[in-house]
Amino acid sequence: MFKATIDAYLLKDSIETLSVLVDEARFRISPEGIAVRAVDPANVAMVSFDLATDAFEDFSGDDCELGLDLSRVTDILAVADRDDKVHMELDEDAKKLMIQIGGFSYTLSLLDPSTIRAEPRIPQLELPAEIVLNGKDLQKAVKAAEKISDHMLLGVEGENFFMEAEGDTDRVKLTMSRDQLIDIKANDTRSLFSLDYLSDIIKPASKSNEVTLHLGKDFPIKINFSIANGAGTIGYLLAPRIESD
Amino acid sequence: MFKATIDAYLLKDSIETLSVLVDEARFRISPEGIAVRAVDPANVAMVSFDLATDAFEDFSGDDCELGLDLSRVTDILAVADRDDKVHMELDEDAKKLMIQIGGFSYTLSLLDPSTIRAEPRIPQLELPAEIVLNGKDLQKAVKAAEKISDHMLLGVEGENFFMEAEGDTDRVKLTMSRDQLIDIKANDTRSLFSLDYLSDIIKPASKSNEVTLHLGKDFPIKINFSIANGAGTIGYLLAPRIESD
Amino acid sequence: MFKATIDAYLLKDSIETLSVLVDEARFRISPEGIAVRAVDPANVAMVSFDLATDAFEDFSGDDCELGLDLSRVTDILAVADRDDKVHMELDEDAKKLMIQIGGFSYTLSLLDPSTIRAEPRIPQLELPAEIVLNGKDLQKAVKAAEKISDHMLLGVEGENFFMEAEGDTDRVKLTMSRDQLIDIKANDTRSLFSLDYLSDIIKPASKSNEVTLHLGKDFPIKINFSIANGAGTIGYLLAPRIESD
Repeated sequence: MFKATIDAYLLKDSIETLSVLVDEARFRISPEGIAVRAVDPANVAMVSFDLATDAFEDFSGDDCELGLDLSRVTDILAVADRDDKVHMELDEDAKKLMIQIGGFSYTLSLLDPSTIRAEPRIPQLELPAEIVLNGKDLQKAVKAAEKISDHMLLGVEGENFFMEAEGDTDRVKLTMSRDQLIDIKANDTRSLFSLDYLSDIIKPASKSNEVTLHLGKDFPIKINFSIANGAGTIGYLLAPRIESD
Repeated sequence: MFKATIDAYLLKDSIETLSVLVDEARFRISPEGIAVRAVDPANVAMVSFDLATDAFEDFSGDDCELGLDLSRVTDILAVADRDDKVHMELDEDAKKLMIQIGGFSYTLSLLDPSTIRAEPRIPQLELPAEIVLNGKDLQKAVKAAEKISDHMLLGVEGENFFMEAEGDTDRVKLTMSRDQLIDIKANDTRSLFSLDYLSDIIKPASKSNEVTLHLGKDFPIKINFSIANGAGTIGYLLAPRIESD
Repeated sequence: MFKATIDAYLLKDSIETLSVLVDEARFRISPEGIAVRAVDPANVAMVSFDLATDAFEDFSGDDCELGLDLSRVTDILAVADRDDKVHMELDEDAKKLMIQIGGFSYTLSLLDPSTIRAEPRIPQLELPAEIVLNGKDLQKAVKAAEKISDHMLLGVEGENFFMEAEGDTDRVKLTMSRDQLIDIKANDTRSLFSLDYLSDIIKPASKSNEVTLHLGKDFPIKINFSIANGAGTIGYLLAPRIESD
């Protein structure tokens, strides 16, 4: 059983955090809310998505799993107004999700969860550096890096966080000191990442005033932020690229 | 003889109601105004266009027929400001239309009307259901349906008007009750239409606060609305598709 | 030696006046400012660009020449905010330009000036007619002409400036009298120009309230305007096309 009502813009934002990495996802329903763990087809990035019942106007759910084609949900939500309420109800027998938005009634066929890639195990990593900054600053750095290269170095030097990109002929570097950041746990680290992935992840992250990065030396980066006034938490884990000098 | 002045935005809106169906049209001029009857190349949709002299700042015309390439007129109007006055004058000997807009003088070659498809005979149909609604509501339904399918069912069930689209796996339905409509003459009806055509027709119709639909059982739909504060009337007739169950 | 600070929007506007004609340019630095003379690859249009030190917040430069890939500079400036300050400094030994904008540090490899096409000699021409008008009016005329043809006639008839375009079937003409212009030195002239080039040149020119045209009979046109509150001057010279009647 699953039945819930949520603001359209909140559901849109939630789906976007997943659709930047995967086309289909298994939504794990429980009385506590909705959880998704997914990994992109190339095994480079993972996302942990948790939306507690507080994010919903009303929510009731037993343990079950829904398989959804994210682009179909995105299409439906594209017609909705930001302030519309979305009412969802699972029809278990028919294997369909009934969605009501702004007068429209949708009947969405569910995907068989067993045909969707299994949930990845999210590794526990010890990442010594932690940086908290505005998502907009991160987005600006990614955009500047894209003009120069297809990968980007993120790291901590002394008390500063830095982002650097180097192309065949040109280079760009942004250094942010403690007072330009919201917070920093400074430990010298540096890892190189693909801008393809960072550009996608930054889309939902840029809407958050407070994005937390966890960094190591040639280690994956963790990019965490919350949505729905804290009722939802999003965590990305992105594998590093090997730096060739 | 034909000589007239009209607001640029009004002429733009008028041309758009035709250009969604045809590339060229015969404009029938008379002392009462301008009339066009046209059918799309695939014989699926017709349009009846009538613009009375009240829509014009000044108008004088004898009975005559002008052949116009609509995309060329649209191109010219694209440069005009909304509030520009458009002055048109027929040069009968040269077979040209002289157009003056915002300082620019255009000389437009007319098409030989005999090379343009003849005016269709608009059939008289008995359509038992009549629905009056805001063009925006119709547009929203068409957009929702486009996400799911390439055709759309329109009909009346009991006291309600409904629009429904069904794709390979998903379905959407919008039901509007009497109090959500401007008016309804309710008679049970349903007909299926191509969204290709509905999407085009809805563009000009969505600008009208009051669009009237006439529906039957597997019959064509009539979509009527007025422009220019009632000085112009537009009527589309769209053939149904066969419903295969 | 070269070291300078300038508003980002001013540098953007400056680069745009060049990039509409060429991909790479030689920037001639002197204690008086920056000068560029460039000709497009097809030898149809030339640009003279001069930016005096007044345009800069601070400026110090010895005589030297910098080769720059304009698209790379444009990319970098695309990330900057309009109000950002751009600080540039030449690293002569490394043959690099160091650019600082809004916290970002860019290192841009210079092109060897000798690999860039040599500065053209700008011919001295006696052009009898001179028209001063708002760049927006010129832009509107170019846009109207583009809908009809791929070339455009500019000229003076009596006391009026005119712009005319003729396609296979249609024609457009704009006539501006002395009181619609800022100024005119009237002498009967007319020359035909390619709209490909005029469309490009008009992009930066349309931002100027005062564009000066110098015209002759089947002669090149000079299009001059200033930027940076008069601290910069831009002059285009565009070769005529042969009018075939």
